[in-house]
Amino acid sequence: METLTETSQSKGKTVTQNVYYFGSQGADGNASMKDVLGGKGANLAEMVSIGIPVPPGFTISTAVCTQYYKDGKRLADAAWKDVLAAVSRLEKELGKKFGDVQNPLLVSVRSGARASMPGMMDTILNLGLNDETTEGLAKKSGNARFAYDSYRRFIQMYSNVVMGMNGSLLEILLEDMKAAKGVHLDTELNAEDLKKLCVSFKQRVLEETAKRFPTDPVEQLQGAVSAVFESWNTPRAITYRKLHEIPESWGTAVNVQAMVFGNMGQDSATGVAFTRNPSTGERKFFGEFLINAQGEDVVAGIRTPQPITELEKAMPEAYGQLVKIYQNLEAHYKDMQDIEFTIEQHKLWMLQTRTGKRTAAAAVRIAMDMVKENLISESDAVLRVDPASLEQLLHPTLDTKAKKELIGHGLPASPGAACGQIVFTPEDAESFHEAGKKCILVRVETSPEDIHGMVVARGILTTRGGMTSHAAVVARGMGKCCVAGCGDIEVDESKEEMRAKGFVLKKGDVITLDGSTGEVFLGEVKTVEPQLSGHFDELMQMADKFRKLKVRTNADTPKDAQTARRFGAEGIGLCRTEHMFFDSDRIDSVREMIVADTKQEREVALAKLLPMQRSDFIGIFEEMSGLPVTVRLLDPPLHEFIPHTDEEIRHVAQKLGIDEVRLKFKVKSLHEFNPMLGHRGCRLAITYPEIYEMQARAIAEAACHITKKGAKLIPEIMIPLVATEKELAILRELVEREVRKVQAEQKVSFEFTVGTMIELPRAAVTADQIARQADFFSFGTNDLTQTTIGLSRDDAGKFLGAYVSQGIFERDPFVSIDQKGVGSLVQLAVDLGRKTKPNLKLGVCGEHGGDPASVEFFHRAGLDYVSCSPYRVPVARLSAARAAILKKN
Amino acid sequence: METLTETSQSKGKTVTQNVYYFGSQGADGNASMKDVLGGKGANLAEMVSIGIPVPPGFTISTAVCTQYYKDGKRLADAAWKDVLAAVSRLEKELGKKFGDVQNPLLVSVRSGARASMPGMMDTILNLGLNDETTEGLAKKSGNARFAYDSYRRFIQMYSNVVMGMNGSLLEILLEDMKAAKGVHLDTELNAEDLKKLCVSFKQRVLEETAKRFPTDPVEQLQGAVSAVFESWNTPRAITYRKLHEIPESWGTAVNVQAMVFGNMGQDSATGVAFTRNPSTGERKFFGEFLINAQGEDVVAGIRTPQPITELEKAMPEAYGQLVKIYQNLEAHYKDMQDIEFTIEQHKLWMLQTRTGKRTAAAAVRIAMDMVKENLISESDAVLRVDPASLEQLLHPTLDTKAKKELIGHGLPASPGAACGQIVFTPEDAESFHEAGKKCILVRVETSPEDIHGMVVARGILTTRGGMTSHAAVVARGMGKCCVAGCGDIEVDESKEEMRAKGFVLKKGDVITLDGSTGEVFLGEVKTVEPQLSGHFDELMQMADKFRKLKVRTNADTPKDAQTARRFGAEGIGLCRTEHMFFDSDRIDSVREMIVADTKQEREVALAKLLPMQRSDFIGIFEEMSGLPVTVRLLDPPLHEFIPHTDEEIRHVAQKLGIDEVRLKFKVKSLHEFNPMLGHRGCRLAITYPEIYEMQARAIAEAACHITKKGAKLIPEIMIPLVATEKELAILRELVEREVRKVQAEQKVSFEFTVGTMIELPRAAVTADQIARQADFFSFGTNDLTQTTIGLSRDDAGKFLGAYVSQGIFERDPFVSIDQKGVGSLVQLAVDLGRKTKPNLKLGVCGEHGGDPASVEFFHRAGLDYVSCSPYRVPVARLSAARAAILKKN
Repeated sequence: METLTETSQSKGKTVTQNVYYFGSQGADGNASMKDVLGGKGANLAEMVSIGIPVPPGFTISTAVCTQYYKDGKRLADAAWKDVLAAVSRLEKELGKKFGDVQNPLLVSVRSGARASMPGMMDTILNLGLNDETTEGLAKKSGNARFAYDSYRRFIQMYSNVVMGMNGSLLEILLEDMKAAKGVHLDTELNAEDLKKLCVSFKQRVLEETAKRFPTDPVEQLQGAVSAVFESWNTPRAITYRKLHEIPESWGTAVNVQAMVFGNMGQDSATGVAFTRNPSTGERKFFGEFLINAQGEDVVAGIRTPQPITELEKAMPEAYGQLVKIYQNLEAHYKDMQDIEFTIEQHKLWMLQTRTGKRTAAAAVRIAMDMVKENLISESDAVLRVDPASLEQLLHPTLDTKAKKELIGHGLPASPGAACGQIVFTPEDAESFHEAGKKCILVRVETSPEDIHGMVVARGILTTRGGMTSHAAVVARGMGKCCVAGCGDIEVDESKEEMRAKGFVLKKGDVITLDGSTGEVFLGEVKTVEPQLSGHFDELMQMADKFRKLKVRTNADTPKDAQTARRFGAEGIGLCRTEHMFFDSDRIDSVREMIVADTKQEREVALAKLLPMQRSDFIGIFEEMSGLPVTVRLLDPPLHEFIPHTDEEIRHVAQKLGIDEVRLKFKVKSLHEFNPMLGHRGCRLAITYPEIYEMQARAIAEAACHITKKGAKLIPEIMIPLVATEKELAILRELVEREVRKVQAEQKVSFEFTVGTMIELPRAAVTADQIARQADFFSFGTNDLTQTTIGLSRDDAGKFLGAYVSQGIFERDPFVSIDQKGVGSLVQLAVDLGRKTKPNLKLGVCGEHGGDPASVEFFHRAGLDYVSCSPYRVPVARLSAARAAILKKN
Repeated sequence: METLTETSQSKGKTVTQNVYYFGSQGADGNASMKDVLGGKGANLAEMVSIGIPVPPGFTISTAVCTQYYKDGKRLADAAWKDVLAAVSRLEKELGKKFGDVQNPLLVSVRSGARASMPGMMDTILNLGLNDETTEGLAKKSGNARFAYDSYRRFIQMYSNVVMGMNGSLLEILLEDMKAAKGVHLDTELNAEDLKKLCVSFKQRVLEETAKRFPTDPVEQLQGAVSAVFESWNTPRAITYRKLHEIPESWGTAVNVQAMVFGNMGQDSATGVAFTRNPSTGERKFFGEFLINAQGEDVVAGIRTPQPITELEKAMPEAYGQLVKIYQNLEAHYKDMQDIEFTIEQHKLWMLQTRTGKRTAAAAVRIAMDMVKENLISESDAVLRVDPASLEQLLHPTLDTKAKKELIGHGLPASPGAACGQIVFTPEDAESFHEAGKKCILVRVETSPEDIHGMVVARGILTTRGGMTSHAAVVARGMGKCCVAGCGDIEVDESKEEMRAKGFVLKKGDVITLDGSTGEVFLGEVKTVEPQLSGHFDELMQMADKFRKLKVRTNADTPKDAQTARRFGAEGIGLCRTEHMFFDSDRIDSVREMIVADTKQEREVALAKLLPMQRSDFIGIFEEMSGLPVTVRLLDPPLHEFIPHTDEEIRHVAQKLGIDEVRLKFKVKSLHEFNPMLGHRGCRLAITYPEIYEMQARAIAEAACHITKKGAKLIPEIMIPLVATEKELAILRELVEREVRKVQAEQKVSFEFTVGTMIELPRAAVTADQIARQADFFSFGTNDLTQTTIGLSRDDAGKFLGAYVSQGIFERDPFVSIDQKGVGSLVQLAVDLGRKTKPNLKLGVCGEHGGDPASVEFFHRAGLDYVSCSPYRVPVARLSAARAAILKKN
C-alpha cells in the first residue's frame, strides 16, 4: 500500500506552475511531484521521461484546485491562461486543433489526486467533439461508427459529470435503441444508429437541464476542469477520503491528454492490468482487456472482459510491447504496478501507471519475492506491508470438509470467507450492522454510492463485473471478502430477492462467500483456522529482526493463549480474571460472594471459587510456559455479575436459597450512576480485601503447581484502577503476604512481581510516586482514553460519528490512541515512572496495542512491550518493526 | 483557632529528653516545645517560667509515646528510669513520698497531645492512694471525708481508664449508696459512707476484672502512663484526629503533676474559664466553677456549676489573683486563653492554659479587638480566623417575628439556628443524614462516643451540662448550633421520646433550636438572613487589603446574585443555564426540543425557550451590573430533563401531545451507561448547534437590553466539557456569529468574551492548544476531579469513607482539591495556557472555590479568581488573604 505521506518531501518547494506539460519533448514534472501533479499526472510525466509511449498532454496542478476553492469555486484567470497556452502547445505538437472540422483535437480530462482514489473522481473522454468535429473525425478516420460512438459517449459522460444529469436518462435511450434494433451489444449498433442517438441525447439534455449541450471545445474544457475540481468535494469523495484518511486540503490535479481510441475497430482495444497478481501476489502478468472499447468499459464492468493472456493471441505485437513496458515499469518503480493502456489501430499507448492495490496476502508475497529478486531491501519489504491488513490473513477460512450447498460461482475478487444475512441495499447493510447482525451486500454491480454499505458488510457479492470492477477493487482495498461477476445468480433489487440454483433467497437469509474461490454457498458454512503461507512467516521473522518492542497478547483462556503463541506472542500482557467469573458453573459462587453481608460469608463463597480460579491459572500458565504472564486482579464493578430484571432476580434468589427481597435490595444498593467511575478495580479490594487475597492465593497455588512440575514462569500480578500510591502500597503488601504464605505452605519458591495498570489520569500524573510501589506499569489505554477525554466508550457512539466527520477527532480515539491528549499522559507517566525506577517495565494492554499507528507511538514513547488480542499479534509485530525502521530513517 | 503546624519549627531538634521537669526551680521546657511536650505540658512549663503558681511535676515526652508503639506497646526501660528519677525529684521538692503512710505523694496523670483534644484523652487523679495512704491523707488533712472521696474517685477513674472496666458498674454502687442514705448529692455522703464505698468498689473491680486493684503507687503510675499512651489510639481518639486532621504519628505526652485538691471543703474549688467570651468574643472573663469539687466534675457536666463572677463573692482573694493571672496569660500568649484552676484551701493553682476554642463570631471579634488593643498585627488578625468557620455566621437565624411555640430554654452553647427531626442516638443521626433528612441530636448529655452523630446532626440539644460541657465545647468547635443543659425538657432515650411543656415528641418530630438564645421551639420556625457584625465587615476589608485573588460567586438566579454581592462577590464565575430549564413552566418546551426528530422541530421548541432565557439573563445581569458574569452554556445530558418511569412518560406524552411509544423510545435511546462521560456539555452543541445558538442569542439580546439602559457589562460566554481545540474553535465561531448577528439586528455594541471550562484531563494537557481559542479558562474542578481520579461523585459514597479512614485520601477530594493529582493538572493547564496567552484570564468555579485549603492552592497556582456559592464568598475572601500572607511569610 502506498504511504500517503511519501511525497511530502516536495512540500517545501516554493513556486509551483499552474500547468505541467508532457509530450514528445519530455515532461515538466516527474514521479516525485505527486503533491503538485497528483499521482496520475506525476506518473504520466515519469513515464514520458523514461521513454514509454504516452499520449501527450498536460497536468493542471493541485494548487489550482486549492485556489479554485479559495476563490469561491472560480478558476483563476492566470491559471486558465496557462491552460489555454498548453492547449496551443498540444495542438502544435499533434497538428490538430480544438474545434477544427478537418482535424479536430480531442482530449480526455481526468482527475488525479495525490493518493489514488479509484472510481471516486470523474473522467471525461472525447472532449472536443460536436456535430461538426464528429463529422470531421468520421471522415478523417474513415470510421463513422467510431466517430459517432465516441460522440455519444462524450455526450453521456459530459451531461452526467459536468451538467449533473442523471446518467440513466440517456442510458435508457441507448437501451431503447438496442431493443428497437433487436441487438444486445453496443457494438452491434451502426453509425447511423449512433448518430440518431446523439441527436436524441442532446434533445434529452436540453429537456432535462434546460441548457443546450455546449459545442465550443474551450467551453467544454472549462466545464470539465471545473467538474473535476467539484468532484473533489462530492459526498462520495468525502466518504472515501475519510475512509483512507486523505486531508481535504490536498485537492486534486486535472490531467488533459490527447485522446487515443480503443474503439476504432477490431484492431483497437483497451485494458487494465497488474504487473503481478493483486490477489495472490504471484509474479504473473494479470489483467483484462476489451476489443473495440474505450477504457471506461473495462472498469465499469458493463461488458465482461477477456483475460490479458488472450491479448497475445489477438494482438501479439502490441502484447509483446506491453510486456516489455510493464517489466520496465516494475523495475523502475520497484513495486507492483496497476496500468491502463489503449491500443489504437495496433499502436500501444500507456494511459496510466500507479502502485497497484493488493490483498494482504499479495502484499506479503510481493514484498518477500521482491527482496529475493533484489529489487528492494528487507526494511523496504517490512514497510511495504500495511500491518492493519494482516489481520485478514489470520481469520478462519471455509472448512473444505464441511457440507456445503453451492449456489453460485463467480470471480474470486477478494479473498477470505464471509457469512451473513443478505441485504440488497447499502442502507440495509448499515441498519443490519447497527443491529449487530452480520450481513452480505448483494448487488448487480456496485458503484461509489454503495461504499457506506460495503464498509459495514462482512462480504460483497455482485452478479456483474470483473476482477477490476468497482466492487473487486474496493473490496480488496478494504480487505473484505468479495465474489464478483457471479452470473449464475439472479438478483432482483426491487423485490429484494435473489434466485440461485432454484433457491429463492430473501433479505435476511444466510449465505456464505468464499472470496478465494469465488464460490457462494447456502446458509452458514463451517470455517477452519487459516494456513499461513511461508511468505508470511518469512515476513514476520524479518520484522522481528527490526523491532525493539516485545509483543504480548491479551488472553483469558488457554485456547486464546495457544492461538496467540502460534502467532508469535511473547507472553501474556493481560489475563483478565473476571471472565472466569462469568462461567455458568461459577457465577453462583460469585453471586453468593456478592450478596454476602459479612466478611465471613464472603470468605465462604470465595473459598468455593478458589479451586476454579487456580485451575484456570494452571491452564494458562502451562500454555505460556517459559513466558511472562500478567494477571490482572478483579476489575469490574460487582453489579456486572448479578441479575437485574425482576424475573432473573427471582430465579437467582431461589437458586442461591436467599430471600428475594434481600437480593433485590442488594441489587439496588449496587446500582451505580457511572459504573465506569465507580466501585471497581482495586477499590473493591480496599473495601473487600478478601477478594484479592483469594485471587493472589489462586495465582500462587497455580504457580507452585507449575514450578513443582519443573516449568519456569514469572507471574506478574497486576492491580487495576490505581489512582494513588497508597492504594498500591496497601494492595501490594496484601498480595505479597498471601503469595509468601502459599510459598511457605507449599515449600515452593518462585519469582513474582507486582505492578499496576496506569489507566487513570491521576495515576499518570503521579507515576513517580506510584512507581515506588510497582515493578511494572501496564497502560490501560482504553480506560485512560475514557477518563482523559471524559468519553464513555459505551455511550460515545451517538456523537463520535459527528466528531470524526467534523474533524474534531482525526480517528476514533478508541481505535487509534489520541496521541496529543491521552498520549501525552502516557509519555508523562513513562518519564515520571522511569525517573523513580530507571528499569521499570512498561507495557500497554488496551485495544491500542494492536493498532499500527498506536504501536508506532508506543515505540516512540519508549515502552517495553505492547499486548493485543491474539489475531492482532502479527499486526503488532509488523507495526513494531515499522516503527523501529521509521524512527531510524 | 490554633494552627496545627505552628510548632513544627522545633521539629528539627536532635535529641529530646524522655522527661521534662517543672517546679520551684523553673522548667526544663517552654511553650515552643509542643511537639515534644504536647500542648498542655509546654504551657505548664511556660507558666512556671513566667512565675505563675503551678503544682510541680514533669512531662513524659511524645517521643516516649512514639517509641511505645514502635516497641509493640512497651514502655522503654530507659524512659521508665527517667520517670522514676523525676518522681524522686518531685518527692524531694514536696517532702512527700509515693506510698508514704504519713505524707503520701499523690499525682494526677494527664494526657497532652500537640493539639488540644478536649475530652478525647483520659485523665487519672489522686494516683498514689491505697488503703494505707488514704488513711494517712485523712490524718494529715484532718479531713477523712476528703480522703475517702479522693480514694473512691481514684478507684473509679483508674478501674475505668487503666483496667478497662465499664464506669457505670461503680457508678451504680454510688447511686445505690445515695439512695440507701436518701441523699441526692455526692457531697452529702460522709467519710464512713465513702470508705465503705471504696471497699465495695475494690470488690467489684476484682469480680469484674479478676484482678486485684493495684496498691503500689509505682505500679499505679506505670499503668496510668501506659493507659494514656493507649488512649491515643482508641476509636474515639482516632475519630477526633480524623475530624481535625491530626496525624497519628504525633503521639501524646503524659503530664504527671502533684495533686492539688479542690475537694478539701468549702474553702476549696475548681473551675474552668476563658479570658474572653468564647461564644461572642466579648472582652469579659467567662467561666464556671464548683465549690468542693475536683476538676473533672465541671467539665463532665454532672453538677451544674456557677458562673465565674460568683467566685468573687465566694473567695475574693483567690478571685483577684485569678484575674491578674488570666490577664497576664493573655498578654503573654497574645490570644484568648482557656484555663483550668483549682483552689485548695484558699490557695490558687493553675492546672492548664491553652488557646481557647471559640465560635466564628468570637474569633472575628477577638481578632479585631486585639488589633485595636495593639496586641496583634493586621495580618495576624487575618490568620487568627479560620475561614471555614465563617460560613456559620452567614446562615439565616430565626425570624424574631415568626410565630413560635417555645418548649424549652437551655444554655446558648453554640450559636446559630437549626431545625430538624429529632433523633436520640448518634446511629439514628447517621441514618437520617444518609437518607438526606436534617436531624437534631437530642441527648441527656453527650460523650465522645457520640461524635459521629454530632458531626452529621444539624444541631445538638442536651438536658444536662453547662457551657463547657462536652456537647457545648465540641459543638462550638464544629460551628454547629447547640442548646445545652435544657433542664425543662425530659428525655427518655430508651423510649425515644422527649417531653416538654406537655408535648410528647417522638423520633422524627420536628423542633427548632436557637443556639444564640438557648431556646427550643416546636416544629419548624421561619428564619431570616443574618445581621453581620461590624467586626465581620472590618475583618473582610482587612482581608481584602492582603488578597490577590478575586472572588466571584456561582449564581443561577438574581436572588443568589444579590446575596453573593452583599457578601462581597466581584462577579459571577458560574451561571448555570440548565437550572433555568428545569422550571415547571419551561420544562415542557425543553422536552419538546428533546423529543424533536428534526432540526426544524427542535428550532420551534427552542424559539419558545428563547424569551424565557433572555429574561433570566436580564435579571441576573441587572443584579450584577458593572461586574463580569460568566454564563455557561447547556451542560447536562438531555436525559436529565425527561421522565423515566412509565407513568411519568405517559403523563408527559399526553401533555406534549406526542405518542407514548415514541416518547418511550426516545427515553430509551437517550439512556447512557456513564452519563458523566456521555453526550453532554459542548458535545450537545456539536450535534445540535441550534441549542447553543439559542442560548448565545438569549445572552446577546439580554446584553443589548442592559446596554440600551446604559449599564455596563461584559458577558463571558463559557463552553463546557471541551476536550479539544477544534471543539472550541467550532463553537466559538458559532457563538460569535450569533452574538454579532444580534448586535447587528439591534444596532447595539457591547464587549463579550468566549472561554471554556477546563474540566477534562485532556483539556488540561492540551491547554496550550485550547488557549488559542479561549479568552478565559475556568477550572471545573468537580468534573476534573471525577475524571482525573476516575471517581463518580454520585457513586463514591460507598467507598470514600474507607479511602479516607485508610489514609488513601487525606480528605474527601470533592471537598478539598487533591493537590498532588488534580492540582498538578490544574498547574499544568495554567502553565500551558499562559504559555500561549500570557494574559489568559484564569478562574475556578468548582465547589473547591470555597474551600480554604483549595483557595490557598489556587492562589499559589496563579489563578486570577475563584468562584464559589454565595455563602462561601467571605470564606474565599479570607482564605485568599491568608494565602497571600502565608506565601509572603
